[in-house]
Amino acid sequence: MPDPALIATAEAPSSVGNVATGFDVLGHTLEGPKDRVRVERIEDGEVRLRSVTGVLTELPPEVAQNTALRALDALRIAHRLPFGFEVDVVKGIPLGSGMGGSAASAVAALVAANALLETPLRASELYPFALEGEAAASGGRHGDNVGPMLIGGLALATEDRLIRLPVPKGLTCVVVHPHLVLETRTAREALVMPYAISDFVPQSAGLAQMLVGLFTGNPDSLRAGLRDVLVEPRRAHLIPGFKGVKDAAMDEGALGASISGGGPSVFAWFADRGTAERSAPSMQRAFGRAGFDSDVYISPVDGPKASVIA
Amino acid sequence: MPDPALIATAEAPSSVGNVATGFDVLGHTLEGPKDRVRVERIEDGEVRLRSVTGVLTELPPEVAQNTALRALDALRIAHRLPFGFEVDVVKGIPLGSGMGGSAASAVAALVAANALLETPLRASELYPFALEGEAAASGGRHGDNVGPMLIGGLALATEDRLIRLPVPKGLTCVVVHPHLVLETRTAREALVMPYAISDFVPQSAGLAQMLVGLFTGNPDSLRAGLRDVLVEPRRAHLIPGFKGVKDAAMDEGALGASISGGGPSVFAWFADRGTAERSAPSMQRAFGRAGFDSDVYISPVDGPKASVIA
Repeated sequence: MPDPALIATAEAPSSVGNVATGFDVLGHTLEGPKDRVRVERIEDGEVRLRSVTGVLTELPPEVAQNTALRALDALRIAHRLPFGFEVDVVKGIPLGSGMGGSAASAVAALVAANALLETPLRASELYPFALEGEAAASGGRHGDNVGPMLIGGLALATEDRLIRLPVPKGLTCVVVHPHLVLETRTAREALVMPYAISDFVPQSAGLAQMLVGLFTGNPDSLRAGLRDVLVEPRRAHLIPGFKGVKDAAMDEGALGASISGGGPSVFAWFADRGTAERSAPSMQRAFGRAGFDSDVYISPVDGPKASVIA
Repeated sequence: MPDPALIATAEAPSSVGNVATGFDVLGHTLEGPKDRVRVERIEDGEVRLRSVTGVLTELPPEVAQNTALRALDALRIAHRLPFGFEVDVVKGIPLGSGMGGSAASAVAALVAANALLETPLRASELYPFALEGEAAASGGRHGDNVGPMLIGGLALATEDRLIRLPVPKGLTCVVVHPHLVLETRTAREALVMPYAISDFVPQSAGLAQMLVGLFTGNPDSLRAGLRDVLVEPRRAHLIPGFKGVKDAAMDEGALGASISGGGPSVFAWFADRGTAERSAPSMQRAFGRAGFDSDVYISPVDGPKASVIA
């Protein structure tokens, strides 16, 4: 039996990236599926994958391709650690779901490994390594999933800063995850055609109003902010039934609805939990009409953060 | 002598549009040059220009081309006014300066005309007509100059909403206006080449951090928000000496500096008035080294709004 001080296990929640108007910079966590990662300190200065279980049983074993390993390796190198890590991943979040599945493994691994350091880092200090892990999956250092997972709630996650944003009381998210896979890379390829500067103006207007809504609690500003005129129009066709699900949410009184991360999950925000609970079945039925079973999650927008559980 | 109730005069301040990261949606007014417009109710249902004096002595007399006339005509038509307006403009703000010169004539005209209505409108209700006026000069309905002029201070001015933003105490703007003209249309033509979605990510990050900085007063967020990676790189070459002026401001401790509106004026924000006053001469000298005389204005970011003066 190994010494317990050399082993830690952490969980990271799922998340909604982009949040309509904050492409690659806004995201919030969810009470819903989680990834759990057990990390063991090992003598040789390597990071390696021992096992994968849960909703997946295979992940790339190469450090460069595996979000958890790449994040831990970046931590190991930056802090010149004299030891390595061996990792067991229990996947709770499907990949290609738009719920931060690749990010959660990296964050859970980092939070567990951090507990094994002589001087653990603050969550925000783990952020650069989490960004590096995320790059293994998507090719880019975008923090809209790893950022909120590290600090909890709704985060503004830029290249070099991580800021937890205020969330009006009661604000509730519904996420419907249809049983189909949309690869992050496919979703990103839909955005390669360039944009006119004029396309950015309404998106900027939305982002600014989102921030105003969060700081003031004004629902009109949140409504105006939960509109994606840049990314959603190019990705919606990749998600069968998207329009029906979004319309269902809006008909039930959502402040706004759009694609969660790169999709195919669809999220909607509601001013209170009661409305969210009444709306979730309608959203799920709309995916059903498009031919897809789905899972539904209802969570505060101000969701949980990754934490050590053992 | 005409009946005084049929005549009103209003002033509108100059402004800084875009504010680095809020292309076409953020702007704030300045204590500095102003436009003054005298409006007289006339029997026939027309809007016409009677005189132009001040720093300019000619403006287009056609309604479609003249920002003041076009704004008043939009008001007249929307509210089915049974009378018209005759307008005298005293230009205090040069056109092509990047200080909202075309916008100010429209706003001053509207605010004066509003005083002649039986039931004057609220400032925000004048906004659609001000946008229509702005379109006479730039071809677009962007509110980053007319918006803050109508309500004062720093405004988020989207296509359909006008929101005054909180401004941390002491925040001060320096604007240096070099004696050269940069046509709004030329400045906009520099932006016709399309952008990649990835160009928008750091700009969004900046805009969101600007809003965080305004609501929290955190100077790090303001600093991160006062960065324009989208528009400034394409327009800087149109302004001789731009880099020197910006560097001068930053060396003196500015939170950030960029192009005011479409240029050629350059603005910088400072945390307090003292630093702004010490920095202004350095910025002006940098334009001097590029061969241009200039005017300099120092103003609270939370600047004045347009108002009736007689």
